[in-house]
Amino acid sequence: MHRPDPPQTIARLVGKPRASITEVLEARALANGERTFVLEAGRAFSYSESWDLSCRVAGFLRSLDIQGQTNCVASFLSKRSEGLWCWFGTLLTGAVHACLNWEHRGDLLADMTNRTGARLMFTEAAGWAQLSGLKLTGIDTVVFIDSIPPGVAALGLKVYTLEQALQNDAPDITHPEPGDVASLIFSSGSTGRAKAVLLPHNMFTRGGARLAESQGLDESDIIHDTSPLYHIAGQLHNTSMTLLAGATLAIFPRFSRSRFFAQVNEVGATYMGCFANVLRYLMSDPERSDDAYNTLRYVMVAQTREAESEAFAQRFGVTTLDSYGMTEGEPLTLPDPQNMPPASCGIVNPDFEIAILDDAGNRLGCGESGRIVFRPRVPDIMMRAYAGDDQATVKAWRDLWFHTQDIGKLDQDGYLYYVDRLKFTIRRKGENIIPAELEQVVRTHPAVEDCVAVGVPTDDGDVDIKLFAARVPGTDLQGDDIRRFVTGKVARFMVPQIVVVLDELPYTPAGKIDRDKL
Amino acid sequence: MHRPDPPQTIARLVGKPRASITEVLEARALANGERTFVLEAGRAFSYSESWDLSCRVAGFLRSLDIQGQTNCVASFLSKRSEGLWCWFGTLLTGAVHACLNWEHRGDLLADMTNRTGARLMFTEAAGWAQLSGLKLTGIDTVVFIDSIPPGVAALGLKVYTLEQALQNDAPDITHPEPGDVASLIFSSGSTGRAKAVLLPHNMFTRGGARLAESQGLDESDIIHDTSPLYHIAGQLHNTSMTLLAGATLAIFPRFSRSRFFAQVNEVGATYMGCFANVLRYLMSDPERSDDAYNTLRYVMVAQTREAESEAFAQRFGVTTLDSYGMTEGEPLTLPDPQNMPPASCGIVNPDFEIAILDDAGNRLGCGESGRIVFRPRVPDIMMRAYAGDDQATVKAWRDLWFHTQDIGKLDQDGYLYYVDRLKFTIRRKGENIIPAELEQVVRTHPAVEDCVAVGVPTDDGDVDIKLFAARVPGTDLQGDDIRRFVTGKVARFMVPQIVVVLDELPYTPAGKIDRDKL
Repeated sequence: MHRPDPPQTIARLVGKPRASITEVLEARALANGERTFVLEAGRAFSYSESWDLSCRVAGFLRSLDIQGQTNCVASFLSKRSEGLWCWFGTLLTGAVHACLNWEHRGDLLADMTNRTGARLMFTEAAGWAQLSGLKLTGIDTVVFIDSIPPGVAALGLKVYTLEQALQNDAPDITHPEPGDVASLIFSSGSTGRAKAVLLPHNMFTRGGARLAESQGLDESDIIHDTSPLYHIAGQLHNTSMTLLAGATLAIFPRFSRSRFFAQVNEVGATYMGCFANVLRYLMSDPERSDDAYNTLRYVMVAQTREAESEAFAQRFGVTTLDSYGMTEGEPLTLPDPQNMPPASCGIVNPDFEIAILDDAGNRLGCGESGRIVFRPRVPDIMMRAYAGDDQATVKAWRDLWFHTQDIGKLDQDGYLYYVDRLKFTIRRKGENIIPAELEQVVRTHPAVEDCVAVGVPTDDGDVDIKLFAARVPGTDLQGDDIRRFVTGKVARFMVPQIVVVLDELPYTPAGKIDRDKL
Repeated sequence: MHRPDPPQTIARLVGKPRASITEVLEARALANGERTFVLEAGRAFSYSESWDLSCRVAGFLRSLDIQGQTNCVASFLSKRSEGLWCWFGTLLTGAVHACLNWEHRGDLLADMTNRTGARLMFTEAAGWAQLSGLKLTGIDTVVFIDSIPPGVAALGLKVYTLEQALQNDAPDITHPEPGDVASLIFSSGSTGRAKAVLLPHNMFTRGGARLAESQGLDESDIIHDTSPLYHIAGQLHNTSMTLLAGATLAIFPRFSRSRFFAQVNEVGATYMGCFANVLRYLMSDPERSDDAYNTLRYVMVAQTREAESEAFAQRFGVTTLDSYGMTEGEPLTLPDPQNMPPASCGIVNPDFEIAILDDAGNRLGCGESGRIVFRPRVPDIMMRAYAGDDQATVKAWRDLWFHTQDIGKLDQDGYLYYVDRLKFTIRRKGENIIPAELEQVVRTHPAVEDCVAVGVPTDDGDVDIKLFAARVPGTDLQGDDIRRFVTGKVARFMVPQIVVVLDELPYTPAGKIDRDKL
């Protein structure tokens, strides 16, 4: 029947297999009230206090008439503990919470705010500096986390401070249903307008439990957390996983390269999640004899390369892990610390079915690379829809698979391997060439530091494969060396027509090669 | 990997696992050109002739500029062979064909026609009598199958006869892709506006092959066909199945109770599909000694009762079969003539996954009744979307299952049992009562001819179970007899509060009890 065994944590905590994420918070407050849920700048918030603060925010929201048509509350906040009370407080009223990306500015920020349909916004003085000049069509109430900036009173808005909001008593709580929508997250999306992804409560509860259980996290764990709450990683990986594990979330406003290990050791952090660029920053510092003297046990790195990940693990004495997912469905794979095969991004989450499809939608076999698609095996663990864009939802859900924009492959034990973004695929003379598969071979050349392959249009309407390679400093690598090197190691149709050797390649802030600059 | 073995017929015919339904028609014309595809009123159309007629229609359509924005061609036709050439001819141009329900009239007919976006309509003089007074916003070209009615010329339309259309030479054919949309069918839908269901080519090819293979149909079979082409049964069960089997379709304009067996024996029909009412009509005729002297082998009856079906099979010397499906996905189960368990509607089609869900979306186990949901295992074998109603599509596809409006159960061998329509479920004091499960027990009372249970509102805002029973003529059945009879045989919460005994129950034309009249 393909019914996966449910995670045990949820049943132990709330006595049933499905729960809203607020039920988990209350259960933690009841069972482990004195334990620290959040650490921030030397201040500790117990589970009990966190529950109380969230209930007070809920009481405040209940006292206002702010539901409106979309029943959505928005926030535009830097990384800080108060974001959590605003998130949980909103959810406790049965409303949806939309965290807006703190980096956004101008028209895009206005558009996203207006698309939420929210009437109430949680923000702070620095956020107001960005919001105040925008045409916001729905917001009529603003709650400032810190202080009310001058001039706001004259705008005809209802204005409060969080301190005022917290004066409210906690109301009688009726928890949302596990299938109710909890969050609206704007997915950056690789093309076009950002999509507004609606995510149900049970996704956070069940996903948090799967992550906690698969990695054996418990109340002794302290999670180093700089992940913004407006990304799925902040809401699910860090916050919900911590809650389900009964662990502690150590919040820092942003990643600091120079102070990272001092922070880790100060709070005793055992776990952190990051992107590959964080690994590269830390690796680029000079080695020290005490590099491995830190409290970290696990570092979860999204889509890094095997060699990088291994070097980091070795130098800093940690276990590096990977998992695969996206705002629309997360976590799709689970880290498997004891048995993780090299280069794998984990074993398929038993709550999902993952398949690899060819261009026509046919399922490929083990080891074959194609588009990664997924389906849930249990209800309410993935996006309900793209808000306001049913057409995009239907397109993504063709044949009742969620079609990701990624290429990957599965092995016969159910481990997933991320290969490349689908859009990078080069179609030449009827063949599909996956750049990552060529690049992997090129990188084994001793004089190649890094490389990337792209398709460039030819005069006859087809494309050629153009490979950019960065040479190892001091070597005399030439394009023909690379062409000779790969010939016989890859299919003939994969040998690049053009090879450009450079001293270095451009990188994006997230640490990926910047194809647009090439 | 859950990749079902593909049906062999498609590979044998076209040398690949997927094909458009037009490729199948061409392959049949090449391989079995002289064999009869369609029999109608004493006239036989060979596969080769059918292909030629379809190509000529395609050539005609190509010669006009009628694609428009929706690339859809409509037809409003009685049951007749020409409907097939219009259907195949449209598909051969890469366009979508929308067959309109011949029974519709007035505003509803106008609304459906306009929703197709079609500019060209195939119809006949009797159809024009219905269409001519309607506000049709898109149609500018009309092709008459029979003759051009007087007065049409004055309307500023481009008007042709099919005879004129067939003067066109067959163009060079480029077949549509298997994933291209072939048909738009309006699903009657139990509530609200009819939905416009978009169905891909591969659904007809693959579904037709599954039906032909599961029942062992071949070129010796002759299908008695009165199913309208505007229903999925006409397009898929009868036409596509016949094509994939290489069999013969014997077309009759409508079901005739008095002439049915004469028709069957005259053409040598071995197979027919029908609804339960057809069984009842035929069974209500006086028995004759030669009842079983007919050429029929299989009768496929949708959603009949086991006892009815068995009595029919016995009397007329046929094997009765059932399958389950709907416009959006068909066939979801396959008849299994050798091993069909009593009351089952077949074994799950290996191309689909079927599950039974509870109210919260959790999967139920074998033998448990709940909502029937399905997913495809291979691409392009179910609806692409509801045209113009992405919201309804997203709602039906929640959690990436297609949510039917039916209750059913599965056994451990993968056979499906249809139980009831979901909307008939009675919710009383927190319990879900499925009327069909109560009715099945009541019907075992020797004095009960038939019965139906409904929920009726009570003063305190709950509902009571009200059972209507028809007594066997000559018996003195009372309501209390039924209450006593079921007590102990069903759960206490299923015992009806109100029982009304009548001499007979009202039925709909389709042979189901008419709840609206009760």
